[in-house]
Amino acid sequence: MQLDVIDTSSLAERVADKIERHIIDKELQPGDKLANEVELVSQLGVGRGTIREAIKILESRNVVEIRRGKGTYICDNIGMVGDPLGFRFYHDKKKLAEDLSDLRIMLEPTIAALSAARATQQDIDELQKICSEVKEMIENGEDYGQKDVDFHVKIASMTGNSVIPQIIPLISQGISLYVNITNHSLAGTAAITHQKVVDAIRNHDSKAAHDAMLEHMTENRENLELLEKME
Amino acid sequence: MQLDVIDTSSLAERVADKIERHIIDKELQPGDKLANEVELVSQLGVGRGTIREAIKILESRNVVEIRRGKGTYICDNIGMVGDPLGFRFYHDKKKLAEDLSDLRIMLEPTIAALSAARATQQDIDELQKICSEVKEMIENGEDYGQKDVDFHVKIASMTGNSVIPQIIPLISQGISLYVNITNHSLAGTAAITHQKVVDAIRNHDSKAAHDAMLEHMTENRENLELLEKME
Repeated sequence: MQLDVIDTSSLAERVADKIERHIIDKELQPGDKLANEVELVSQLGVGRGTIREAIKILESRNVVEIRRGKGTYICDNIGMVGDPLGFRFYHDKKKLAEDLSDLRIMLEPTIAALSAARATQQDIDELQKICSEVKEMIENGEDYGQKDVDFHVKIASMTGNSVIPQIIPLISQGISLYVNITNHSLAGTAAITHQKVVDAIRNHDSKAAHDAMLEHMTENRENLELLEKME
Repeated sequence: MQLDVIDTSSLAERVADKIERHIIDKELQPGDKLANEVELVSQLGVGRGTIREAIKILESRNVVEIRRGKGTYICDNIGMVGDPLGFRFYHDKKKLAEDLSDLRIMLEPTIAALSAARATQQDIDELQKICSEVKEMIENGEDYGQKDVDFHVKIASMTGNSVIPQIIPLISQGISLYVNITNHSLAGTAAITHQKVVDAIRNHDSKAAHDAMLEHMTENRENLELLEKME
């Protein structure tokens, strides 16, 4: 006689897993509405309390969001939690910022080169728009942090790769735990190197795009060291 | 008169956040024991049920693990959840595998070059050991998937960068959702190119390490396409 190992996860967790499986199988998309509580109760044969607990678990996994009075909907960036790599637990935020900055140097010039090869006219127009907005925000002394991330994510998305645009914001967020890299005393050159990148991509010149992005990333890395000295 | 926005997160969530803050501030390390339930009840002034719920939330965030009859401990890879980028929700697993494989091509040759520059003798010995183990497993027809990941993570860790070794397993896991890249009909050349990478790192030859890793990654990418055709 052989006994199977008993699943010790709670009922609510198993219900959450089951609903998640349903979302995957039915290919529900961000913004789609999930069946309501009553339907889930009758389909899954568990109590309303368990369904509520399961929905909360799925909320904490960033799978669904509860809109009060409206229902439960599939999340944007489904399944991607706020700090997926646990950066908040790194004790040495300075080293984290340096390591992430080094990772950007490895990755982003290659990404820019690929984007230059693949960019459509619409991509280029959209990228130029973001680039100009960043420049204007710098000139006005506004916080351009999010717009700067948008710029780099846009370039990443132009590669056609579905994973890279998800990784870029993670890296930026990790760096911003240590320092506001968009410190205005250091922002001067960003607008210029950003524009160099855009011009190279517009010309479909992969080599120039690579080099301009490398220049930009190297500047950022140097600014990081400069800020450390200023502390 | 101005009113603050009321925090609508549940009490258990707020208690979980508070315990997490405590773990960060006290710099608790993986394997350290968390205060027990009774202590948490008296320190936080909330009921035992709330503490239990908060611990469950922290368990789902991979911050703590409950060892039955022993207590609650800080997790390895603290804060890093099982599928942090939500790969399980990608409908097109084939495209996901291709995109991750392309990302590896961008990243790993540069990593190998950096490792060649920085490797210590101990690093090289350890890497050779893993390399030989993979070779043996391939020859014996064993599943060498995890050992192959170990090989690439070891190279990543030799760079001294703290983030890169965390990203490599994510990429491999994403690819393995689509295909067992360690399919034995295709594994033949892996042992050879692995050894080329190790030899180049041993010689601190960054250029050769880059090129050997690029060859290995390109082979993997081609195997992916081959497997697609075999379907």
